[in-house]
Amino acid sequence: MGHKISEIAQALEAQAFGDLGIEINGVAEPSTAGPDDLALAMSEKYAEGLGTGDARAAIVWDGADWQALGLEAAIVVPRPRYAMSGVTKLLDPGPVIQNIHPTAVIDPSAEVGIGAAIGPFVVIGQGVCIGQNARIAAHCSIAEGARIGDNALLHSGVRIGARVKIGNDFIAQPGAVVGSDGFSFVTPEKSGVEKARESLGDQGDVQAQSWTRIHSLGAVEIGDNVELGANVAIDRGTIRDTKIGNGTKLDNLVHIGHNVEIGEDCLLCGQVGIAGSTRIGNRVVMAGQCGCSDNIFVGDDVVAGGATKMFSNVPAGRVVLGSPAVKMETQMEIQKSLRRLPRMMQQIRDLQKAVSKNGQKE
Amino acid sequence: MGHKISEIAQALEAQAFGDLGIEINGVAEPSTAGPDDLALAMSEKYAEGLGTGDARAAIVWDGADWQALGLEAAIVVPRPRYAMSGVTKLLDPGPVIQNIHPTAVIDPSAEVGIGAAIGPFVVIGQGVCIGQNARIAAHCSIAEGARIGDNALLHSGVRIGARVKIGNDFIAQPGAVVGSDGFSFVTPEKSGVEKARESLGDQGDVQAQSWTRIHSLGAVEIGDNVELGANVAIDRGTIRDTKIGNGTKLDNLVHIGHNVEIGEDCLLCGQVGIAGSTRIGNRVVMAGQCGCSDNIFVGDDVVAGGATKMFSNVPAGRVVLGSPAVKMETQMEIQKSLRRLPRMMQQIRDLQKAVSKNGQKE
Amino acid sequence: MGHKISEIAQALEAQAFGDLGIEINGVAEPSTAGPDDLALAMSEKYAEGLGTGDARAAIVWDGADWQALGLEAAIVVPRPRYAMSGVTKLLDPGPVIQNIHPTAVIDPSAEVGIGAAIGPFVVIGQGVCIGQNARIAAHCSIAEGARIGDNALLHSGVRIGARVKIGNDFIAQPGAVVGSDGFSFVTPEKSGVEKARESLGDQGDVQAQSWTRIHSLGAVEIGDNVELGANVAIDRGTIRDTKIGNGTKLDNLVHIGHNVEIGEDCLLCGQVGIAGSTRIGNRVVMAGQCGCSDNIFVGDDVVAGGATKMFSNVPAGRVVLGSPAVKMETQMEIQKSLRRLPRMMQQIRDLQKAVSKNGQKE
Repeated sequence: MGHKISEIAQALEAQAFGDLGIEINGVAEPSTAGPDDLALAMSEKYAEGLGTGDARAAIVWDGADWQALGLEAAIVVPRPRYAMSGVTKLLDPGPVIQNIHPTAVIDPSAEVGIGAAIGPFVVIGQGVCIGQNARIAAHCSIAEGARIGDNALLHSGVRIGARVKIGNDFIAQPGAVVGSDGFSFVTPEKSGVEKARESLGDQGDVQAQSWTRIHSLGAVEIGDNVELGANVAIDRGTIRDTKIGNGTKLDNLVHIGHNVEIGEDCLLCGQVGIAGSTRIGNRVVMAGQCGCSDNIFVGDDVVAGGATKMFSNVPAGRVVLGSPAVKMETQMEIQKSLRRLPRMMQQIRDLQKAVSKNGQKE
Repeated sequence: MGHKISEIAQALEAQAFGDLGIEINGVAEPSTAGPDDLALAMSEKYAEGLGTGDARAAIVWDGADWQALGLEAAIVVPRPRYAMSGVTKLLDPGPVIQNIHPTAVIDPSAEVGIGAAIGPFVVIGQGVCIGQNARIAAHCSIAEGARIGDNALLHSGVRIGARVKIGNDFIAQPGAVVGSDGFSFVTPEKSGVEKARESLGDQGDVQAQSWTRIHSLGAVEIGDNVELGANVAIDRGTIRDTKIGNGTKLDNLVHIGHNVEIGEDCLLCGQVGIAGSTRIGNRVVMAGQCGCSDNIFVGDDVVAGGATKMFSNVPAGRVVLGSPAVKMETQMEIQKSLRRLPRMMQQIRDLQKAVSKNGQKE
Repeated sequence: MGHKISEIAQALEAQAFGDLGIEINGVAEPSTAGPDDLALAMSEKYAEGLGTGDARAAIVWDGADWQALGLEAAIVVPRPRYAMSGVTKLLDPGPVIQNIHPTAVIDPSAEVGIGAAIGPFVVIGQGVCIGQNARIAAHCSIAEGARIGDNALLHSGVRIGARVKIGNDFIAQPGAVVGSDGFSFVTPEKSGVEKARESLGDQGDVQAQSWTRIHSLGAVEIGDNVELGANVAIDRGTIRDTKIGNGTKLDNLVHIGHNVEIGEDCLLCGQVGIAGSTRIGNRVVMAGQCGCSDNIFVGDDVVAGGATKMFSNVPAGRVVLGSPAVKMETQMEIQKSLRRLPRMMQQIRDLQKAVSKNGQKE
């Protein structure tokens, strides 16, 4: 469980100084670090903390005088945030899932790759195919015909629906759902909602109407290196598949509607919602609680600030904010103006008086 | 598994032309359709796709010249979107749930209707009553005294709480929760929040206060033909039941607070939230991420655009948008004005100069 | 199951009048109460309902003339909303969970306190420690090293992650997740998002970038008397623990990011989201769908109205509303001004004409 400083430095491809044989058992913030911890002093503001904690070794910022900081060993990294990735990976024990638990119900027609570990009460359906070294925690269910690549990590209670296809190195946090049915309903006659959308607000004569279900025949197709947060919900497509590209990460409680296509290397933060048939480009980043209307297109490299609501297409590369989404700098101007609105109203009243006085003078 | 064109046309009550004996195994978009697929060419814009795909048969728009489109058979439908309902229903294989799985824990006092299929590790409590032909997937739990009507489909991991009553033809996507306890807490003395609500913003003297739980003695009552999305959460009522009317559909991650009453044939899209004791009429449609405050009333046939926040009652038939919700056309005007605000500020400054100059001239 | 009026009055520390031996089996609203129900007539507006219902006994408001209302017995309470707490607690049967179910998989190294009840298919990992009188419903999983205090109630399908620490009197509604991994990713070079945040909107030259995972080595630490709603998601910390203080309650579908610290006695209503590393003080109340950006601080006793989005620090005691959050009274003024904007635009046009005319006259 212990790791030598030399070993950590090697994993980070970073330079190390001092006593490289010191063994550490965990990481800690500088002020609370014990003698067996590696203190994470990623910038100068942590210098003081190193003084109050008991760390013997630390990751320090480029240029730090580690000996003056009272350390016996130090690892120097040029981009500390990136170094966090390597050091936390090295020290993460990962969940305990051992062998194939005897209570798991695995259909005889399913194929499970070598090295896979499957927890208690897991259910794996007909014709499922799971790659090598998968770790599937308690209470997961993987329905008929689903395929999951190598090295998957499914935390407890993840639901993979029928015929869903998932690439390699997939991670799903507890309760994530992939392949729920799309939310797609139709009325025999044109509905009030369809009319309101066409006319931007007028439903016409409202009539009683009830909803008939459009079944979802498509599945979900997920690329490599995708991660899903806790209690995420991804709907299957109606005819074609809902798609999530390689390297895309979804945070907790994100909702992805039917037929949605998301590109590669996107980050969708907590509680983002994407309505049906919308397409998201590559490397798009949406902060928490963003929303996209159905059937729109969000271009590559778009960045959306917190709670931004996109009702129409967003061009590639744009940084947007607000509801409805506008360029971030426009939103900043609008917000500034809003705070001045009461004063503007007073100025208009003053002007009205002055003009009326000027007019009367003549 | 194959379906003849004649059979599909009959199910859709639609006219068919050409070789009605062609068998199809699935549906596809025109451009990707293979020879065994029924292409869905619902409007003229799909004409080109039919040329590039290999479809022999298609559902086509009213008035299409199917022979000129290179098809051997065609089904003509007057409202293509509605036809989607029939054709997808016909071709949906549905989830595989067979018999009563031996691992299911079913209380001896529970009644399960004939034709029901119950998956692995399902738990059914004391006195539960489940109708005919129910399909209950792996890991569902149905607590004591709950009643579910005929033809229910519960996908994996659905949680039905004690004494919940559900009608016929119920569908719940994975992870849906019905009957969690209401979020209802009270302080011994009047709380800062109560004071702030009364005074619209002033909490008065803030005092330490801790919350005591009000238990939920009510249940949830759900009508016929209701569908719940993945990871939905519906709280039980405090004294009376929380109610969801016939034909209402809830999308993924929707939150319904305690004592809420929702009418018939409503659609609440992804991540909508309805706070406690609010009443929603019939045929109300809310787009994704809408919210309703507690204790308000939303009238029949209201349509709310994406992310609309309703803080007070909404009259029947209104189409609303924005936060706070206003009529959609008012919201459109407000948004237009907002974009002009910086220009207005400049116009006021120009006016101030001009007026001052006019005033000085005299 | 029946409770005498005298017994209920004693539990509520309230005065009772009339026939204190009447036994009641439940509570009901006055108009629907039967002869075995205790009617809840908490204020004068319920007087009429008492007339139409069949209640023999009621909880009535301070000053009510219970005999004139046709009652045989009455309990008088000074703060009726607070009395709801006591009476509903007395009458709540609670979930049925009996003994240790033989299907539960409990690691031999786990310690389960005396009086605990554990339902079917529960999974308890290595070294887990659960206090006395815990009730753990079907399909819960508690991973290695987690500790839960006395009197816990975990409803079905709750997921407690590895090394999570929880105090006494904990309640979790179905599907709640504690200890999912944080949403923390980094690019080898500075990402477009980091640049956009630094410059408030400019990503600079956009480059292809993919995300590397920062693993979560911290856990979650939860105090005493905490309640979590259905399908809540709480991420573990990166290095230190994510923290939830004593007495804090989270409603359904709330999202808590990694490293977040929430104080004591807070209420976070349905679908609230708190981004990573944000700190929330004590007694903070957020209405439904509120959001907080990452790395901000919300002071003690803050009250945030529905769907308020906090992008920066909020001082203690403030009542805020809107997106971005401003003081509630400021938001009210802004909203009033917004509705007047189209009229202001007309007034400016009128002024421009008048000024131009005044200028020409000379």
